[in-house]
Amino acid sequence: MKPNFTLRLRIFNLNCWGIPYLSKRRAERMKRLGDFLNMESFDLALLEEVWSEQDFQHLRQKLLPTYPAAHYFRSGIIGSGLCVFSKHPIQEFTQHVYTLNGYPYMVHHGDWFCGKAVGLLVLHLSGLVLNVYVTHLHAEYNRQKDIYLTHRVAQAWELAQFIHHTSKKADVVLLCGDLNLHPKDLGCRLLKEWTGLHDAYLETRDFKGSEEGCTMVPENCYVNQRELEPFPFGIRIDYVLYKAVSGFYISCKTLRTTTGHDPHSGSPLSDHEALMATLCVRHSPPQHPPSPTHGPEGSQLISVLKEAWRELDLGVAQARWWATFASYVIGLGLLLLAFLCALAAGGGVREVAILLWTPSVGLLLGAGAVYLFHMQEAKGLSGARAELQHVLGRAREAQDSGPESRPALLLGQQEGDGTEEQ
Amino acid sequence: MKPNFTLRLRIFNLNCWGIPYLSKRRAERMKRLGDFLNMESFDLALLEEVWSEQDFQHLRQKLLPTYPAAHYFRSGIIGSGLCVFSKHPIQEFTQHVYTLNGYPYMVHHGDWFCGKAVGLLVLHLSGLVLNVYVTHLHAEYNRQKDIYLTHRVAQAWELAQFIHHTSKKADVVLLCGDLNLHPKDLGCRLLKEWTGLHDAYLETRDFKGSEEGCTMVPENCYVNQRELEPFPFGIRIDYVLYKAVSGFYISCKTLRTTTGHDPHSGSPLSDHEALMATLCVRHSPPQHPPSPTHGPEGSQLISVLKEAWRELDLGVAQARWWATFASYVIGLGLLLLAFLCALAAGGGVREVAILLWTPSVGLLLGAGAVYLFHMQEAKGLSGARAELQHVLGRAREAQDSGPESRPALLLGQQEGDGTEEQ
Repeated sequence: MKPNFTLRLRIFNLNCWGIPYLSKRRAERMKRLGDFLNMESFDLALLEEVWSEQDFQHLRQKLLPTYPAAHYFRSGIIGSGLCVFSKHPIQEFTQHVYTLNGYPYMVHHGDWFCGKAVGLLVLHLSGLVLNVYVTHLHAEYNRQKDIYLTHRVAQAWELAQFIHHTSKKADVVLLCGDLNLHPKDLGCRLLKEWTGLHDAYLETRDFKGSEEGCTMVPENCYVNQRELEPFPFGIRIDYVLYKAVSGFYISCKTLRTTTGHDPHSGSPLSDHEALMATLCVRHSPPQHPPSPTHGPEGSQLISVLKEAWRELDLGVAQARWWATFASYVIGLGLLLLAFLCALAAGGGVREVAILLWTPSVGLLLGAGAVYLFHMQEAKGLSGARAELQHVLGRAREAQDSGPESRPALLLGQQEGDGTEEQ
Repeated sequence: MKPNFTLRLRIFNLNCWGIPYLSKRRAERMKRLGDFLNMESFDLALLEEVWSEQDFQHLRQKLLPTYPAAHYFRSGIIGSGLCVFSKHPIQEFTQHVYTLNGYPYMVHHGDWFCGKAVGLLVLHLSGLVLNVYVTHLHAEYNRQKDIYLTHRVAQAWELAQFIHHTSKKADVVLLCGDLNLHPKDLGCRLLKEWTGLHDAYLETRDFKGSEEGCTMVPENCYVNQRELEPFPFGIRIDYVLYKAVSGFYISCKTLRTTTGHDPHSGSPLSDHEALMATLCVRHSPPQHPPSPTHGPEGSQLISVLKEAWRELDLGVAQARWWATFASYVIGLGLLLLAFLCALAAGGGVREVAILLWTPSVGLLLGAGAVYLFHMQEAKGLSGARAELQHVLGRAREAQDSGPESRPALLLGQQEGDGTEEQ
């Protein structure tokens, strides 16, 4: 490889808001999205919330000449909503479905039915191995009383672990998607600390777009204005994150967002804003000094791991509480059913007793399902908590034995971190 | 590292048959297992079907002096049943729960409730990175009419993909567990072809144990003799598989199995036989010639991928058929409920109508659950089929462009395959 080698990557990311029957002007927006992607000819376009596979197939047909490679990630009942279009051949792909993703009885929120996941693509560009991840985490419906907080933290941890374990031989790692996390949220800090990924918005010197890089802005006519009231500029929950390892520098030359409008016509492409990044990967000389911030980074990692551990621990306790509660309801339901049977056999209020059978059998089945669900939730959260605890223990050991042992902790992950300071 | 460096690893694997209340003499067998593991002092003991976390905790207490590191993999409602005890520190661990794992309404088989998974441990031994996987796939209840075949093939594919994507920087890869697959079964061939793993039983020159290496044998008093009738020597479904990459040789010096009895007392440790392997990892000189079998291996890979693709394709069609059938039942159930409401309002057979509400609401809810389940099954199988199809396409391209392009296909997986021919 030449010493002055430079790889330029133009990336597009958008949560497309493509819910059949519910999202406004879906077909027309998808059409405009296809036209825009064809015109701009990015290296990679990563999309979330393409819930209809037909929308994906239409886009695929339309984008075939510009983006010969494409993949739709199938999971859950509805699907993951994730897909990707690439100008370059995709060498490999796989996916990991998150263990926890909301509650089946929260039907009106629907996340549980989607099978939220992370998709991985491996590309080989100019001799570099590029691991590209696309994901969409559980939505936040009420920031003040967020019942999905623990699940989102568990998802962020699973995402970080998936990236950690699958990117050990990658030269460049790129993660795009709708994390449903504000930049300072626990899940976002956990993800960044454990993977070593850098945030394009914070790193670039050339940003143009919405105020503070927000990806849901009040100017967008599809956004629920009431939800954005506490945030006058909007919120930043969609990200382009990256890192380079083993002797490469990566930097974000430019980052653009849409600002509540289609970049060409007036109407927006989605209720989220699109992110458009130009990344630059360059060869790094072997004498590139290691990042001098190991000490503080180590303590930051420990602090965020502790915080996440406490959150998951609370979640485990809560899941167990619900399972216990459901088991009491099952007991009561069985008693009620026995009582109704006795009444029906007895005489007098026979009809009323029979009439009450349906709701009491329903109660019993419902409580049984709730019990099973929360048992599984507790197991999933305990699994994530155990992984976190192990990493926390090793991070503490590494801190105790000095900064030189940190690379061992993150073996194959952040050795010779090649993110260029801008 | 010295050129004459040798790493010797003693591995133990056992499906422990540890079902609370159901497995015979569980406590006593677990006690004997602990004594045996302490006495033998293996490098790694990998266990399956430790369904009770209490059993794990008891073992952990007992084995702590000999095996200071241990982990229990939590998933599903009951758990994955997987755990590991290690003489050496565990650097990292994580797990992947299989997307498909049987049917929730097959309660008597129970696999769906377990959350079958693959656990990964990363160990650093003598400067080598060792990725150890432990797993347990869906059981086979009826070989003649195996309704779980597709799920097991999908699990074998997910397992192979998980190993493929997480072991790219490992020097040695080891997989142990109960695959519930005979050596020539599609899932087993798919796993071996796509990961390049070698079977300790087939590779070793020093084997002692049950006939044909079987791990469920008629001599074992806990085995259901009727199920083994077609197999006079028993069946081989538990495995030790391994490979070495990037300049190392690995070989299986000795392999032992129990033969229906405890190696010391008379009574068996489980209904499965234990596997005890001594593996030897040595430095391989850089001029080690590449394996000359790329051509036939390539065509074997293509053939097994095709076979698996057809199996998954059948599975997708079947899952869709069930979902469609369930949607008709939902329609019928709704009609029936409307009819019963009309009857109840009418008079005459009022009581009968009300009495029939419970079963018809049950029918409706049941059919709804079946519909959702099979929709999710179809999505999961389609996802695996798409991954398979992509690999198949690339394997064909590699074959067309000659044997030298195969390493590119399996990049980071089989480069300089270092399995020593015995």
